[in-house]
This record gives sequence, C-alpha cells and structure tokens, in this order.
Amino acid sequence: MDMARLARVRGYMEEEGLEQIVVTSTAAVYYLTGLWVEPHERMLALYLDRAGRAALFGNRMFGLARPEDLELILHTDSDDPIADLARYVKPGALGVDKFWPSKFLIGLMAARPDIRPVLGSGPVDAARRYKDAKEIAALRAASKINDQVVETVIAALTGGVSELELAALVNKTYMSLGADCADGPQLVCFGPNAADPHHAPGQDVIQAGQCAVFDIFTPIGRYWCDMTRTVFYKDCDPESRRVYETVRQANLAGIAAVKPGVPLRSIDRAARAVIEEAGYGEYFTHRLGHGVGVECHEPPDVSAGSEAVAQPGMVFSVEPGIYLPGRLGVRVEDLVLVTEEGCEALNAAPKGLRVVG
Amino acid sequence: MDMARLARVRGYMEEEGLEQIVVTSTAAVYYLTGLWVEPHERMLALYLDRAGRAALFGNRMFGLARPEDLELILHTDSDDPIADLARYVKPGALGVDKFWPSKFLIGLMAARPDIRPVLGSGPVDAARRYKDAKEIAALRAASKINDQVVETVIAALTGGVSELELAALVNKTYMSLGADCADGPQLVCFGPNAADPHHAPGQDVIQAGQCAVFDIFTPIGRYWCDMTRTVFYKDCDPESRRVYETVRQANLAGIAAVKPGVPLRSIDRAARAVIEEAGYGEYFTHRLGHGVGVECHEPPDVSAGSEAVAQPGMVFSVEPGIYLPGRLGVRVEDLVLVTEEGCEALNAAPKGLRVVG
Repeated sequence: MDMARLARVRGYMEEEGLEQIVVTSTAAVYYLTGLWVEPHERMLALYLDRAGRAALFGNRMFGLARPEDLELILHTDSDDPIADLARYVKPGALGVDKFWPSKFLIGLMAARPDIRPVLGSGPVDAARRYKDAKEIAALRAASKINDQVVETVIAALTGGVSELELAALVNKTYMSLGADCADGPQLVCFGPNAADPHHAPGQDVIQAGQCAVFDIFTPIGRYWCDMTRTVFYKDCDPESRRVYETVRQANLAGIAAVKPGVPLRSIDRAARAVIEEAGYGEYFTHRLGHGVGVECHEPPDVSAGSEAVAQPGMVFSVEPGIYLPGRLGVRVEDLVLVTEEGCEALNAAPKGLRVVG
Repeated sequence: MDMARLARVRGYMEEEGLEQIVVTSTAAVYYLTGLWVEPHERMLALYLDRAGRAALFGNRMFGLARPEDLELILHTDSDDPIADLARYVKPGALGVDKFWPSKFLIGLMAARPDIRPVLGSGPVDAARRYKDAKEIAALRAASKINDQVVETVIAALTGGVSELELAALVNKTYMSLGADCADGPQLVCFGPNAADPHHAPGQDVIQAGQCAVFDIFTPIGRYWCDMTRTVFYKDCDPESRRVYETVRQANLAGIAAVKPGVPLRSIDRAARAVIEEAGYGEYFTHRLGHGVGVECHEPPDVSAGSEAVAQPGMVFSVEPGIYLPGRLGVRVEDLVLVTEEGCEALNAAPKGLRVVG
C-alpha cells in the first residue's frame, strides 16, 4: 500500500462522511496498492475503512503475490466470489466504486441485507487529481517519449502511406520505446476525415494541401501520455493557415491561463475565446481537456461546466480544435502540470505551422 | 425490436420468474433492438416486462433515431440519467444486467426503495445461445472472410517480419474486407512466445523451425469470427510434428462430437482425451471453447464444468491447444454451428501440417 495516498483517501472519506468503501477499478486499486489487476468478469475489491482496516479480495487466477502490508483474501472460480467480502464489511452505508458490475453488488446485498450501498468512488477520484512526485516523474517520462513518437510518425508521412499504416507505426514505435502496451486506436486523420474528432483511421492516403492530425496516446510505466499535433502535406491554403494559427493561439492561451487557484472552466474559456473571436466558435465542439494519470481520461474535467480549480499536482490536457465538416480539422494538444507558480507543459514537440512532404 | 427474439426472452423471463428486467449491455440491446450503442460512462437501459411494456432509455448524445415499435425516452448530460427509468419500473423484483455499472443501480435504488434488484441477464443470455437464420448468415459470412484473412497473413510470414507487423496486417486486411472495426489485439506468436496462449505480439521475428500461431478475430456485420491456425517456418522437428498432429486430431475429435443432445462438457472431453492419450494433458491449459455471436465470448461455455447441452443454432469455438513452456505452442480453432444432424464447421482454412517459407 502507498500509505501517503491511503491517508489522503481516508481524509476524503471523512469529508464525504463515508466510513467504509470498496475500491474495484483496476486503476484505483493500482493507485493504492501498486498491484495491476484486470479482473475482466472476475471479482476484485479493495476494502478500506476509516478505522484502519484494509483488505484486498481477488481470484487466485490473478496471480497476486501476498503484499507485506495488506490482507489478501483469495477465492477460486468455484467459490462464491463475494462470500469473503460479505463477511468482512460492516453494517450500514458502504461506498461502492461507480463501475463495479451490478452482479457483485447484487450478490453482496443478498448476503448482507444490513448494508446500504452508496456511491463510493469520490475519495479515490479526489486523491488521484493531485499527482505526487513519483506520478509526476512517470508522466514527464511518458510525454517525453510521446514527443519522440510524434516526430517519427510525422517523418513517415508521405503520399503513399495510409492512415492505418501510420497508426500502426505509432503503436510499433511506442512498443520499441518501452510502452506498457500499444494496441490503442491511435487517431491518424487526413483532410476531411479530421473534421470528425473521433474518425477511425482507414485506407485513405494524404493529398497535397490536406491536414494530418495525429492524436496519440498510450500508457508507459502505467501513466499515460496523450498529445495531438496537426501538420499539412505539401501545401497549406490561406484558410487552413488561419484555422491552424487560431487553434495554436487557443492552445497557448489555455496553457497561459493555467495557475493555481484558477477555475478549470476559466481555462476552457480562455482557449475558447480565441476560437470564438476568430469566428470558429461553433466548430470547437468538445471540452478543452481532461485529467490524465493511470487512466487516459480521469478527473479533473476541463470544460465550461467544470467545478474544479487548478491546484499544484494536477495534470490535464489542453486540446482546442476546429473541425470544418467536409474540409479539415485541426487540433493541438499538450499535457500540462499545474505547479506552484503556474504550469509546466509536459510536451515539447514544436507547434509552429509545419508543411511537410 | 426483433419480435421473435423478444418473445423468446419473455419466455425465459417466465422460466426464471422475472416479471421485469433492465437490459443494458451494448450487445444485448443490439440483439433485441438492432440499435448499436456504446454508452461508455453514460446510461443506456432497455426495460422489458412480461406484460408487454418495452422502453429504451438513453442519452441524446447517442443519436438514436426514434424506433417505430419501441418507446424511446431520452435524457441529456445535465439530467439525472436514471430519473425516467425510476418512474417507469414497477415495485418488486427487478432483473438487472450483470455488468451494469453500480452507479446506475445505486441511483435507481435511492430513487425507488420499493424495487428489489436481482440478477437479470439470464433471459437474454439464454436466448442468445440459439442463433436465428439472420445471425447464422452473418456468422457464416464473417468466418468465410476469416478464412481469407488467415491465408493472407500466412502468405506474409517471412524471416524479416515481426509479430506486431503481422498483427497489423491482420487488422488492415479485415478492414479492407469490410470488418466493422479491426483494432483488436490479434494474437500472432512465434516459437516460445506461443507457449503463452495470451502472448501479446512484439518485435520478434521468426526463426527456422519455429511455430507461428495466428489467433484472429473481429466483428463483421456485428457478428464475430474467431479462428486459429498454426504453421511452421522452414522446418518442423519430429516433436513439433507430433504436437501439431495431436492438436489437429483433438480439434477433429471435438468437432466430430458435436451434435444435438450432447453435453458440451462431453465435447471438451472428446478433444481433451486425444491430448491426454498423447501424454500432453497437462499442457492443454484452457477450456475447449466458447460461444460466439454479437460478442466474441458469450454463452455457452464449452468446458469440463459446462452445464449446457448442444442444440441446433448454437455456435461455439473448438480450440484445443498444447503449450510447452520455453519451446512452442500449437492451437487449432474453428467455429462450429450445431445443426439438426450434427454440426457445420464455419471455417474452411486447411488444417493439415504446413511448413512455409
């Protein structure tokens, strides 16, 4: 167990009035225990109470080594997976992870009619918003690798290569640089395809004058990198230049707004204002960013509706975009770490307009 | 709504004593409505009762067209997602899909203390075990494409190509042949890597005498194909031949055992017996197979512990393997459809020993 993180989670449990919680997501269990378990249809649960009890319940198939400082309670496929947990929990309110499959909760309620399930993801989610030194080191290292990968893939952009081939090159390059895994659906989008922020790469090859958007992400050392660069192939017409420059300025304005005490919705606003002033407001169709850590998307939310306030240790994306249907899309994304003084951009790949090929 | 499927689900609800259920998985909702929705963190729920009520609850972001024969009740991101459903359900037992995120169930219970959640996936899972004519046509077509794809990738096996490159070729070929998507972690494993049935493809290239296992799968027309072929590169030593021939005979024995009325555990046994008799029993470390349909793994289970009995319309995999740590792995997998007389193999790619290169 990471005792400092656990203490912070218990502090948030107190704030939320939760006496006991069951932590079940892979990322949350990893955050607290350092154990990475993907339970699929099997049961995984880390029980915590404020009095100091902690136990990890899992299937023998997970191959967990017995941790030194944590009770480990194992079951097999032929056991009732929730029986041990049902004996362990105390009566009354029990905080439950938001994505725990209902089958386990239903089983637990049947075995223990004296518990009252309530939402219990808050304490760990709250703690995970603030990265500690070890997490910051991992995030910096992952983004540094991402700077390399994006240059590799931009260098490979030619008139004969498809979106899919470049997406595969991204994953291959990640693996060669030590990523945990790299089977993600990397976003490589040419020309009009880029007007859909979630276009899946296909067989298209790039044409002169088209944009190429590379939104690439993977976990490295369990922490995610996530960056977007947009370049143009052989030529860039005046409107494309204007769109690109607007997005770049929005990215810079967003980053410039990041400092402790600033509401995240104001950071969204700062970037969005640049795009609105250029007349493209309706074509920036998503939030400015999202927290990044053990998961690629995690709290805090960086949007117009966000209630969060920037504080040192937060890491999130700043990724404005303009999407002109049938024509092009441009997005420029960096990860930033909130520091005592302002922020540190974790990505250093150049952002000036690039026409390649 | 597919009325024939709905009627079968209501029949199973009656058998299980369920008056009302909430169907929430993407595959199960698709099976009944023909609507494909990946809700991610948002709420999706198809409510059904035995009296004939049916309504689909979803977020406006899903972009659902109003179906003709189904009540559609939409909410937005700023609404309480379970409010409409909470008004709709009847008091008493409510069957809930096994993987519904707990946050929705907890919200529903808070709004409706008069409901009693119980496991409710059974009726749809039971119905989905038996494929109808439309599903069988889709499964046949998908496996026919898989036969093509495996030949393409075997033809591309040379001494200079990595597991990762062939895995990318599999996905690229799927896309060119009309797959719904192809970003799955295709299993391409050379030599000792193949001794781990879940080895993730890496940068290794094949050496003379090594095996190459191709376990490839993707959805095409919403129904999955899933097949494994194992070949050898340039040479195949006597033990490799013996292992290969044993697995091939086990695959054939498993398929020969498939006919209506046979317990699926007997089919597992028929294949496993061949491997045990050859002295490799301890190296066949997984079940014989799994159902395939809208999901790659779905009921019925084909294992020593399966309670299911083969019936016409079932489609499942027959995939024996032998895994010799540090040396090699061999697996031969086909999908089979149980027919009135016996079974039909959906894969036709050759299974005789192949030494290529």
